[in-house]
Amino acid sequence: MPQVFFIPQNKEITVEPGTNLLKATDQAGLYVEGDCAGKGTCGKCKVKIVKGDGGNPTKAEQKLLSDKELSEGWVLSCQKRVKEDLTIEVPVQKAAYLRKTALEGGVEKLDVDPVVEKKALKLNRPSVKDQTADLERLLKKLDRNDLSVELRELARLPALLRNNNYSVTVAIIDNRIISIEPGDTCDQIYGIAFDIGTTTIMGSLLDLNNAEVLAVAAATNPQNIYGADVISRINYASEGEDELKQIQNKVIEAANEIISDLLKQTKVAKDRIYEIVAVGNTTMSHLFMGIDPTYLAPAPFIPAYSRALETEASELNLNINEAGRVIFLPNIAGYVGSDTVGVILATEMDLNSSQCAAIDIGTNGELVLAANGRMIACSTAAGPAFEGAQIKQGMRASAGAVEAVQYTGDGFKISTIDDSPAKGICGSGLIDAVAAMVDAGLINTTGKIINPEDNPDLVPEIFKSRLKQAEGGMEFILVPGNESESGEDIVLSQGDIRELQLAKGAIYAGLKILLKEADLKEEDLDKILLAGAFGNYVRKESALTIGLLPQLSPEKIVAVGNAAGDGSRMALVSKKIRDRAFQLPELVEHLELSTRQDFQEIFVDALKFNQ
Amino acid sequence: MPQVFFIPQNKEITVEPGTNLLKATDQAGLYVEGDCAGKGTCGKCKVKIVKGDGGNPTKAEQKLLSDKELSEGWVLSCQKRVKEDLTIEVPVQKAAYLRKTALEGGVEKLDVDPVVEKKALKLNRPSVKDQTADLERLLKKLDRNDLSVELRELARLPALLRNNNYSVTVAIIDNRIISIEPGDTCDQIYGIAFDIGTTTIMGSLLDLNNAEVLAVAAATNPQNIYGADVISRINYASEGEDELKQIQNKVIEAANEIISDLLKQTKVAKDRIYEIVAVGNTTMSHLFMGIDPTYLAPAPFIPAYSRALETEASELNLNINEAGRVIFLPNIAGYVGSDTVGVILATEMDLNSSQCAAIDIGTNGELVLAANGRMIACSTAAGPAFEGAQIKQGMRASAGAVEAVQYTGDGFKISTIDDSPAKGICGSGLIDAVAAMVDAGLINTTGKIINPEDNPDLVPEIFKSRLKQAEGGMEFILVPGNESESGEDIVLSQGDIRELQLAKGAIYAGLKILLKEADLKEEDLDKILLAGAFGNYVRKESALTIGLLPQLSPEKIVAVGNAAGDGSRMALVSKKIRDRAFQLPELVEHLELSTRQDFQEIFVDALKFNQ
Repeated sequence: MPQVFFIPQNKEITVEPGTNLLKATDQAGLYVEGDCAGKGTCGKCKVKIVKGDGGNPTKAEQKLLSDKELSEGWVLSCQKRVKEDLTIEVPVQKAAYLRKTALEGGVEKLDVDPVVEKKALKLNRPSVKDQTADLERLLKKLDRNDLSVELRELARLPALLRNNNYSVTVAIIDNRIISIEPGDTCDQIYGIAFDIGTTTIMGSLLDLNNAEVLAVAAATNPQNIYGADVISRINYASEGEDELKQIQNKVIEAANEIISDLLKQTKVAKDRIYEIVAVGNTTMSHLFMGIDPTYLAPAPFIPAYSRALETEASELNLNINEAGRVIFLPNIAGYVGSDTVGVILATEMDLNSSQCAAIDIGTNGELVLAANGRMIACSTAAGPAFEGAQIKQGMRASAGAVEAVQYTGDGFKISTIDDSPAKGICGSGLIDAVAAMVDAGLINTTGKIINPEDNPDLVPEIFKSRLKQAEGGMEFILVPGNESESGEDIVLSQGDIRELQLAKGAIYAGLKILLKEADLKEEDLDKILLAGAFGNYVRKESALTIGLLPQLSPEKIVAVGNAAGDGSRMALVSKKIRDRAFQLPELVEHLELSTRQDFQEIFVDALKFNQ
Repeated sequence: MPQVFFIPQNKEITVEPGTNLLKATDQAGLYVEGDCAGKGTCGKCKVKIVKGDGGNPTKAEQKLLSDKELSEGWVLSCQKRVKEDLTIEVPVQKAAYLRKTALEGGVEKLDVDPVVEKKALKLNRPSVKDQTADLERLLKKLDRNDLSVELRELARLPALLRNNNYSVTVAIIDNRIISIEPGDTCDQIYGIAFDIGTTTIMGSLLDLNNAEVLAVAAATNPQNIYGADVISRINYASEGEDELKQIQNKVIEAANEIISDLLKQTKVAKDRIYEIVAVGNTTMSHLFMGIDPTYLAPAPFIPAYSRALETEASELNLNINEAGRVIFLPNIAGYVGSDTVGVILATEMDLNSSQCAAIDIGTNGELVLAANGRMIACSTAAGPAFEGAQIKQGMRASAGAVEAVQYTGDGFKISTIDDSPAKGICGSGLIDAVAAMVDAGLINTTGKIINPEDNPDLVPEIFKSRLKQAEGGMEFILVPGNESESGEDIVLSQGDIRELQLAKGAIYAGLKILLKEADLKEEDLDKILLAGAFGNYVRKESALTIGLLPQLSPEKIVAVGNAAGDGSRMALVSKKIRDRAFQLPELVEHLELSTRQDFQEIFVDALKFNQ
């Protein structure tokens, strides 16, 4: 069986022939980045084949790697299968350390200034001439008389000193010694960044000495048994203290599973994890910290708190160092959470003087506009259309989902994930398909599918047979039954288009109102940043065609990846960045769209398709 | 059955005829002070009979109350039995508020500046125009953006605000909100002061708004099953983490019983107790806080810590407000604990410019000398002789114990507790008896009982028949068999006198070395303060005669009562005083007697009796 040797980590594993190289990397306990779950669209899982043959470049590799990279041996690990012995160079990941600054377009070196501080100490032995108590002896050596100490650690200190020749290492957060360890452990300072999504929880384990991402893990948020959306979960938690505790326990258990996975991948000891920094929407924040979210649901949508909450890991039963700290970054309003704070941190909108907007699209859409020294945020009920939900033949982005549609002038070019026979339509496919229909003149600007019987001149001949009258209005056959997996047509209905229209209209209307509030025109925007998975998948041109975004030149529209998660990693490794996060609720103005008299009018206008 | 009506508390109870008035007071849930457990010797349980007849004054009352007091109706409640309806005025106790300053001899008003702060707030209702989060709304009203908040309290805040018309009270310690309560509860701020003795645990519940002592309760320290002395307990705790936890649980359980007793007496709710301040010797401190005491036992006697330790009540499972604070005052050295810190606080030795020594005598004796801007402390192994232990016919101070002996020139006047037939000798009786024997010329300065057969001229005729040769040397018949309870002679043996000599020699030698260290002579001392129960019971003249103390005029010797416990109460009600306590380990020099080359010589010299 083929062997794969990884450098510079010097790990060797044996795999079944044909094993996917990305899976092999994972099996070796190594981490390569990736946003597209191995679909070959994000281009992030680059590794270099130093020895051995990886086969010819796939289409995805040809698209996402430069000729120079391909000639040097770079491949996308998700695209390769191991057929013979390979030596693979895995680039050390410094996602939080060396990262693209979305606004500048450059690569910036992040200051690593973790909140956790470690010092190794060698104390003098006590004697009758020097009866200084153990703790005071230690603090004197540290020259820090201002420190307090965890009782648990103090309880063990006398034996620890005497069993280790008076050599110990202390871990300090703020003015508190949270851990005292035998010998010199200064090289072991770890932390975990969490992105607590309504649907998915992501965790990354970072080395706080150098901000390297050592491992990532994800899990479905098991609170989904109480409902897929935040309102259902708020309603459940509101039933009583037991229910709140129950729903909190769910997310804590999932976080602990992720922690255990991260520890297993890296062989790091749980006692050496000193901090957790988490982001999530305001409801997720309340439920993670066990705070009553009841009054988030009804108007006027009041959260229990905005500021960052901090507590000991043991209080939340999180399985890191018992005295480790957990910090949930601050939220801005009931529906603008610390995930948005993470987006601002990662994109540095708060530091940059350009006029830009960031849009994070999920079930809700959060928007932030930075201009003229102000930051204004709002949330819109985008609806789940972008995730393929409430769409007749919508599905999640997995094998067989129509993910790209292009109007070629004489027909549609359709791609599915994994090139499998089409099963349904995912979010990016939906936007592409509707944009292609607009391009082909099959939909008018009000969103109505044109009936070729009423307007035979408007509809190209080739599409006439694909438009048919159904119960709820016209339908367009995107994939005919003879090409689909099930043998049935895959269609886009008039209702589907209305769903998408409502979603994109809500986002665009939100942006328009933010611009109005800041007294800006659309063309004044230097950049629009698209955060989250959505931003990576959607084709800018299609987003422009359907009028999700204002009509700016496509280079002004930048996908910034999982900026919320990046923000939590950055706040984990840097005190300076964390302090910036703590200030944001004061600095970001929240605009409640429901109070705007002009919302309806702007919303109706924003429903229109382009052209 | 007679009824007793108490003013100003307006409580009425019905009692069995003949009920002791002190017990009736207790039964009514009222607290009167007392140091002698109802033996009529401390004079502290004064109450005033406003209506009704309490009977003639007893001997104790005649001795301890002035003629003016007697004519006004003041009685000692321990001396009275209720035979008819009475109206009793119980003075409101302000032990910590109005207290004798031992050094000045006056009465001082204590500044009440508790660490716990309460504020009642009425918040504005939120609206879509004012979506400020609940916590931020509250902090804004408080104008304290620096505060953090207990998660438990934040968790309940949204419902609490809405169920109470947005009127709440916050309790703050330092920069943390530890409690948020419905309505205005500013008048309810309570704390408990503990004196954790090796033998006895004492607790007092205080109103932190005015420093009134509302109730006191005591219990035997149940750690005694692991040994009566600190060394046995250290050895047990050193066996492992489980044993340490076990012995900690014992004292925590006892403290919780006292807390529950105090709450029952006062009807105060446990959630309204926000702080516990405790003092005790260094071993008791370690065991209460659950810190490994192992290295206190062997030389060089190193404690795990000196500073004050602070934690949440819930971490120690103490049944007050879950987020309430527990502070164990700092210790000075392995055998000079926070009880000595309490003595310094209560006597204000650290603030006063006079040259004085404080002596706290128990199983160990702790001494502090304050002079010329220095404070020096040491501990001596006084041995348990002063508690009647290791004395042939020694006993604790209870009914039948010989408690006072006086040489009248033609015999000994002997008193027993309760005037019961003599059963044995307690500590104060022992010192009195030996002093009387010295006065009568029955013991020479080296402590030897004179044998009348060898020196017939030195021994008064009346005592000759009471001196007899026994196995271990001479014995003196203090109470002949026909006067004792058992019919047997109650004797003082040569061995008993040696025990006392060793104990008093250790104390006196400690004091001599402190004086030598400070370059002072005995006559330079302005005051000697005797702390603890011992100081209340011992007759100064006898202490001088046996050479326990230097030969100063008796008015320089002042009993200051349970100064350690007073110190913990003072630190509970006053931030200023607590801060003084925190500084003391830095300010008090500790002198380890075992390192002194001159100790043996001074000790041998200190063994001598006076005259």
